[in-house]
Amino acid sequence: KYLKFFYEGQFGVTMRNTGSGDQGEDDTADFNFRRNRFGFIGTYNDKLSFYLQTEYLDDKAVNPLGVKDSLTDDENFYVLDAQIRYAQNNAFNVTLGKFKHNLTRENLEGCFTPLNFDRSLFVAAPFKTSRDYGVAVWGNLADDYLQYRLDVMEGRESGGEGDEGSYVPNSGFRYTGRLHFTMFDKETGYGYQGSYLGEKKVLTVGGSYQYEADVAYGDTTNRTDEVDYSAYSLDFFAEMPTAAGTFTLSGAYLDIDLDDLHKGADPDSALTDNVAAGTFNGANGQREGYYVKAGYMLPMNVGPGKLQLFGRYDSFEYAMLNGYTDNTVDFYAFGANYYLAGNDIKIVGQYSITDFDEEVGADTNKQDYDTFEMFLQVRF
Amino acid sequence: KYLKFFYEGQFGVTMRNTGSGDQGEDDTADFNFRRNRFGFIGTYNDKLSFYLQTEYLDDKAVNPLGVKDSLTDDENFYVLDAQIRYAQNNAFNVTLGKFKHNLTRENLEGCFTPLNFDRSLFVAAPFKTSRDYGVAVWGNLADDYLQYRLDVMEGRESGGEGDEGSYVPNSGFRYTGRLHFTMFDKETGYGYQGSYLGEKKVLTVGGSYQYEADVAYGDTTNRTDEVDYSAYSLDFFAEMPTAAGTFTLSGAYLDIDLDDLHKGADPDSALTDNVAAGTFNGANGQREGYYVKAGYMLPMNVGPGKLQLFGRYDSFEYAMLNGYTDNTVDFYAFGANYYLAGNDIKIVGQYSITDFDEEVGADTNKQDYDTFEMFLQVRF
Amino acid sequence: KYLKFFYEGQFGVTMRNTGSGDQGEDDTADFNFRRNRFGFIGTYNDKLSFYLQTEYLDDKAVNPLGVKDSLTDDENFYVLDAQIRYAQNNAFNVTLGKFKHNLTRENLEGCFTPLNFDRSLFVAAPFKTSRDYGVAVWGNLADDYLQYRLDVMEGRESGGEGDEGSYVPNSGFRYTGRLHFTMFDKETGYGYQGSYLGEKKVLTVGGSYQYEADVAYGDTTNRTDEVDYSAYSLDFFAEMPTAAGTFTLSGAYLDIDLDDLHKGADPDSALTDNVAAGTFNGANGQREGYYVKAGYMLPMNVGPGKLQLFGRYDSFEYAMLNGYTDNTVDFYAFGANYYLAGNDIKIVGQYSITDFDEEVGADTNKQDYDTFEMFLQVRF
Repeated sequence: KYLKFFYEGQFGVTMRNTGSGDQGEDDTADFNFRRNRFGFIGTYNDKLSFYLQTEYLDDKAVNPLGVKDSLTDDENFYVLDAQIRYAQNNAFNVTLGKFKHNLTRENLEGCFTPLNFDRSLFVAAPFKTSRDYGVAVWGNLADDYLQYRLDVMEGRESGGEGDEGSYVPNSGFRYTGRLHFTMFDKETGYGYQGSYLGEKKVLTVGGSYQYEADVAYGDTTNRTDEVDYSAYSLDFFAEMPTAAGTFTLSGAYLDIDLDDLHKGADPDSALTDNVAAGTFNGANGQREGYYVKAGYMLPMNVGPGKLQLFGRYDSFEYAMLNGYTDNTVDFYAFGANYYLAGNDIKIVGQYSITDFDEEVGADTNKQDYDTFEMFLQVRF
Repeated sequence: KYLKFFYEGQFGVTMRNTGSGDQGEDDTADFNFRRNRFGFIGTYNDKLSFYLQTEYLDDKAVNPLGVKDSLTDDENFYVLDAQIRYAQNNAFNVTLGKFKHNLTRENLEGCFTPLNFDRSLFVAAPFKTSRDYGVAVWGNLADDYLQYRLDVMEGRESGGEGDEGSYVPNSGFRYTGRLHFTMFDKETGYGYQGSYLGEKKVLTVGGSYQYEADVAYGDTTNRTDEVDYSAYSLDFFAEMPTAAGTFTLSGAYLDIDLDDLHKGADPDSALTDNVAAGTFNGANGQREGYYVKAGYMLPMNVGPGKLQLFGRYDSFEYAMLNGYTDNTVDFYAFGANYYLAGNDIKIVGQYSITDFDEEVGADTNKQDYDTFEMFLQVRF
Repeated sequence: KYLKFFYEGQFGVTMRNTGSGDQGEDDTADFNFRRNRFGFIGTYNDKLSFYLQTEYLDDKAVNPLGVKDSLTDDENFYVLDAQIRYAQNNAFNVTLGKFKHNLTRENLEGCFTPLNFDRSLFVAAPFKTSRDYGVAVWGNLADDYLQYRLDVMEGRESGGEGDEGSYVPNSGFRYTGRLHFTMFDKETGYGYQGSYLGEKKVLTVGGSYQYEADVAYGDTTNRTDEVDYSAYSLDFFAEMPTAAGTFTLSGAYLDIDLDDLHKGADPDSALTDNVAAGTFNGANGQREGYYVKAGYMLPMNVGPGKLQLFGRYDSFEYAMLNGYTDNTVDFYAFGANYYLAGNDIKIVGQYSITDFDEEVGADTNKQDYDTFEMFLQVRF
């Protein structure tokens, strides 16, 4: 019965070629903590443990899909994860509390062990984007070749999500299932990694399905035309250490469906755009797309550390984005990880291009832009 | 000189037979942390120590007196307790900082050691409901048969309480005194327990009085007709371990008086209802009532743990509630505690009925409702 | 590789002879935590370490330049410091993250080791008053006689500061340089102390300069007339332990320049007053002034502790304050520190007089007032 504490941080700079100046045409630069986490693991005995992780982030000017006009000082610590974990055995584990749901592999990859700078900007679920409150049952079967996961979580709450305050048809839960098949050095934990830094030879393919009934009104005025939410994802991950270096390739397809909510008579504006009202929340809503990411880690040390080059490509078509239907975003990124002590001390840099199929004229946040980001990661 | 850390959590589900759907007539269900606390005790030497406890709760749909229409994501950690403790000797202790005031025994019973699911929903003080900033002096006299407590705390602050922003006549403090007489295995700490799980034989009777002058205007327009706040409570607690199991019985009477504020010309709406303006804060205000609670713990183990059955009844008459004067709430609850490792690992379930004497027609939050709640409690 | 935790708190009472009652003419009293900090130092190896410090404060009625009419319950923990520290050697250190910038010596004096009750109320920088995000390089040269510091930090962010939401011309950084010359027992760390309690004989003189281009519009309507921000400070600190006690004398001059922003056609109201609109933010803006502070610590113990008497005088002329141009504030304070275990347990009391050159008629917050403050400080 003991507590073990940890701290994990990523501090660096974000630069965007738009967002400042009178017309938003000038560069913007921002020092920030990308992540800033403090937490502990409490072990009661072999089977029962607890994991708490807090996050603290100040408001940032430069964000994935825009530069903010106005920052708040209203930041605070919040609980990212708070899990009561019961491990009956390798085939049957129960987790209670607040933790990651199981829609996508990338969401389940550790925030401090991605292959690229960070995970995809386009794979967040429409509500409770990454973590949620509820229960999960999971385990490994068939000599660990097979892993199953089932979770029942809040999903969209009847009180509505956040500041939107949209009226939600009912108080149902969101259900998620996931299966993966894994070979060689198998992946058996709840969390994945984006790279094992040449220490594991891995091939994993997986699929997930997520569902919640009656999540929004297509006609909010009359409180009718409820839509269901469903999503599925297919993914693979391969990493191969060789004498010539470690090669990594991973990808996923994701489809998020809201029964064409955006075509409703007066659709819930928390999940789509309402150009007349100036609300643009389509980025939270219906979309489909995929990403592919690749890495190559040099076999020898480069100076005191190990160097890993990476690139990724994301392409997502949104039912409604920036006021256009069927608008597509392409995202190209490349960069490098420099591991001074594995993932405990590393420096990461990435250059990325965000390309909208349909661009909006005046607002530089809705036009193509380039971003350069760099951080130092430390874990104690 | 050292720090000792702890974590205490209660995670579960709350279900209400109202609150969702178009007219609020459907069931509502909510996963949530009832409590989620991290803190430490810092010991400087024999006499001086420090106790800090933080709480983190996300917004919940289902609440004691209603189901929320709209949730916020604006949650944060806050400091629940922050106490500098000086123990001269058993008869003279001083506590400085933020901690529980001494109006009711139930408020002083530990949040993780209640007899029932939780303490009474109706005994919170009108302002600084449970904790407050200030100073307390307390100690045990006469071979511990007698305990005294005196505190001087903020009470209602001149700047007003929270979002209400009501203008408060002055900046005075709130004063509380408490005495108890205790027999057999005496209760000598600042905190009580709702049950000692058969490890102590206890009989305690106590009384408290709390006072603050000029806390609100009866006529806010003209800033006249100041009312005083006074409250008193009488309570008893008995627990008897026997060969046939452990029997617990406890109860309290509470009277909270605001000089009939609700009869004022234009009373401070933070403490009463203003039906015309649609504000309903009478639940914070003048009331009187009592609760009785009883428990029975089986003498033998039931499976790997100990089982304790409980029931409680609360009856409180509010000067003004839900727009009615002299409206009474009756609350019936029964359930069970299942102790897997005392209060360190326990499962609690409770079914309760909330019954208003006067019901409001359209709003299901102001009509009778039933609630089922269950949580798993862990302490590290 | 380990974490070391600490807690530091100051709890006490603040009394002001104005601020309550119908016309704000009555006394106001407030129990509060002046500081309430929890944090840790993480040491990775000889050169790399991490320092995190959080602060939690509840809303207070009595503040340095006014008594609040309305308190919020919207308090939270925030990260005060979060520093990744790399120490190449005594002459070259790099700090990354959130930490104090280098404009004034008093801001760099430890919050728990001031000479007086607290640091000057008038030396905060106009934005990012004490801490900021960025990078600093610093070190000691010439047998530690000379110390240099350079920092590049956010300063005013393009998104504007806090709730003001003023439009900011660009996204540039703020640059600060500082040099000091120190003799006898030299000051070599990043943080200074307000007194070394007779354990060091010190003489240090220093100077700082801070600059950020285009921080605000003099004409916000037309988004023209950008002003630059520049500030400089000169300071000295002397402490001399003798057989007759320890004598301390310190002072600083500070000039904060915003190119006469207040004379602009429609100046950014986050940094000056706009009487017509009822906004009074001139206290954040252009000013010049100085403080002198002195202390005398008795050579012998007084009871179980050591007694240090202190006094200070601040005089700052604001370009615009409370609606008057060139309004001056004089601040006189005296009091005592009683050290029961150095700065680990001490009691501090101070009486102060705040004297405005130009007083506003009706608002007691803009008239002269007196303040008495006392706290107990503990550090674990």
